[in-house]
Amino acid sequence: MAFVNEDNLTELAGQRWASAHDPRLAELITALVRHLHEFAREVRLTEDEWAAAMDWLAATGRMSDEKRQEFILASDVLGLSTLVVQLNNRFTAKATPATVLGPFHIDGSPPAEFGFDMAAGLDGTPLFITGTVTDTGGTPLPGAVLDVWQADTDGYYESQLPEVDEARLRAKYRAREDGTYCVRTIAPKGYSIPMDGPVGDLLSRTGISHFRPAHVHFMLDEPGHRKLITHLFQEGADYLDTDVVFGTKDALVVPFTERPAGPSPDGGHLDRPFLHATFDFVLEPTPS
Amino acid sequence: MAFVNEDNLTELAGQRWASAHDPRLAELITALVRHLHEFAREVRLTEDEWAAAMDWLAATGRMSDEKRQEFILASDVLGLSTLVVQLNNRFTAKATPATVLGPFHIDGSPPAEFGFDMAAGLDGTPLFITGTVTDTGGTPLPGAVLDVWQADTDGYYESQLPEVDEARLRAKYRAREDGTYCVRTIAPKGYSIPMDGPVGDLLSRTGISHFRPAHVHFMLDEPGHRKLITHLFQEGADYLDTDVVFGTKDALVVPFTERPAGPSPDGGHLDRPFLHATFDFVLEPTPS
Repeated sequence: MAFVNEDNLTELAGQRWASAHDPRLAELITALVRHLHEFAREVRLTEDEWAAAMDWLAATGRMSDEKRQEFILASDVLGLSTLVVQLNNRFTAKATPATVLGPFHIDGSPPAEFGFDMAAGLDGTPLFITGTVTDTGGTPLPGAVLDVWQADTDGYYESQLPEVDEARLRAKYRAREDGTYCVRTIAPKGYSIPMDGPVGDLLSRTGISHFRPAHVHFMLDEPGHRKLITHLFQEGADYLDTDVVFGTKDALVVPFTERPAGPSPDGGHLDRPFLHATFDFVLEPTPS
Repeated sequence: MAFVNEDNLTELAGQRWASAHDPRLAELITALVRHLHEFAREVRLTEDEWAAAMDWLAATGRMSDEKRQEFILASDVLGLSTLVVQLNNRFTAKATPATVLGPFHIDGSPPAEFGFDMAAGLDGTPLFITGTVTDTGGTPLPGAVLDVWQADTDGYYESQLPEVDEARLRAKYRAREDGTYCVRTIAPKGYSIPMDGPVGDLLSRTGISHFRPAHVHFMLDEPGHRKLITHLFQEGADYLDTDVVFGTKDALVVPFTERPAGPSPDGGHLDRPFLHATFDFVLEPTPS
């Protein structure tokens, strides 16, 4: 009988996992085994390095819960999250590109009128974001929902603040009959990802910047169209070209124009200066 | 400025992680990023599959502690643990081959005389294991320590039994002046790996056998020689050719011969039948 040796092990492991009842699971795990073994062979992984990796994985899992997604953070900083977004959101050039969801989205944000201030009561420079929602043919999509969320000026999202018990810096806007929308919020700032866990430990042993550039998140999920999860980034912001999660894209970087006190894009009036960004969201129709 | 796209992402991520201060860490993580991305591209990993993987990894970490090493179990069943053993223990053909350490070794087992019964007071068929410890040139290694451990007849190791507070089925034997040793224990049995965690969940979705064949663990760490971590397997045992952790090797399978009541290999006398296995451990000298 021939048992395991260095030459036949990878093939044998692949054969075993090919017995998965679901064909797609079999495909995934056999490919994973092959790539994992190729990695270990290429770097000739030592036993101490293997043991350190086991400890790191266990610590990363122990730090993960509904609010702190340390494994998603690991996937983000290794570029895997952005890669998966790219692979699954190959829109045509006319459509608004997608970027990473991130770990801070909360379902069920409250509906918001045109121009609603989702930052009411919070410090920060007022920011209006206006534009249209259309399909790739330019047809407005009246009633399209824009699910918007962002961090506060300290870099914290609502889900990171256990004491908050109402919607904070998040709301669901709706495009009007002509496809126009108007979000009122405060200017986002760049922030560091959480550095007090195993992912931060690893990053601190490199020259990698652990910051994200200032951005606002958007999700648009219209029937008949590809779901769009994306950000808008502030033109000229710090960290745009070093975004630790590889999220920045040219087409998503927009100027935040300084405007004096006076008429505001929501049809009202502000008694202090504010910022104004414009962006037209373009959704790709689902293949019929 | 050119930001991330599907084509440049992997290269960009590799460049970033190449900034690790330690050259070996840079080598490891850049290779990991490349293989991880190749895997995701090859299978075109979906967003749902990615999310399921994140959940599985977090659950596996949360289940891991000093006694329950669920990530090591994952590494074992994917063949990674055995591969790392192979890569780091390429002994010459004359030397006893290594196999996986497993998660159940306990440091500091008590010293044991020639023929000491490390299973005293436990149910099971008496088993003697005798032989020599030499180097690859055949020279005996007097005083060589054999750190031995195994599961009980229910398949449990001491570290899985929180109520046990003294050494159980583990001891450190020592070769005599002529290199001979004598272990007394009970016959091990095949057992299932723990199936109540994320690794068991995954295995249960395949046709893979989740059992290990009957075996006894040995560790020999002699100055001037390569450390040897290995098992002896019972010839003819169940699961030899389906060992779930890929540990079985031809050279480590030995007959457990039935012997009648009477003189025993420790120089004593048993009043009931017992088993006897012989095995000569051969250690590879460290390159000088």
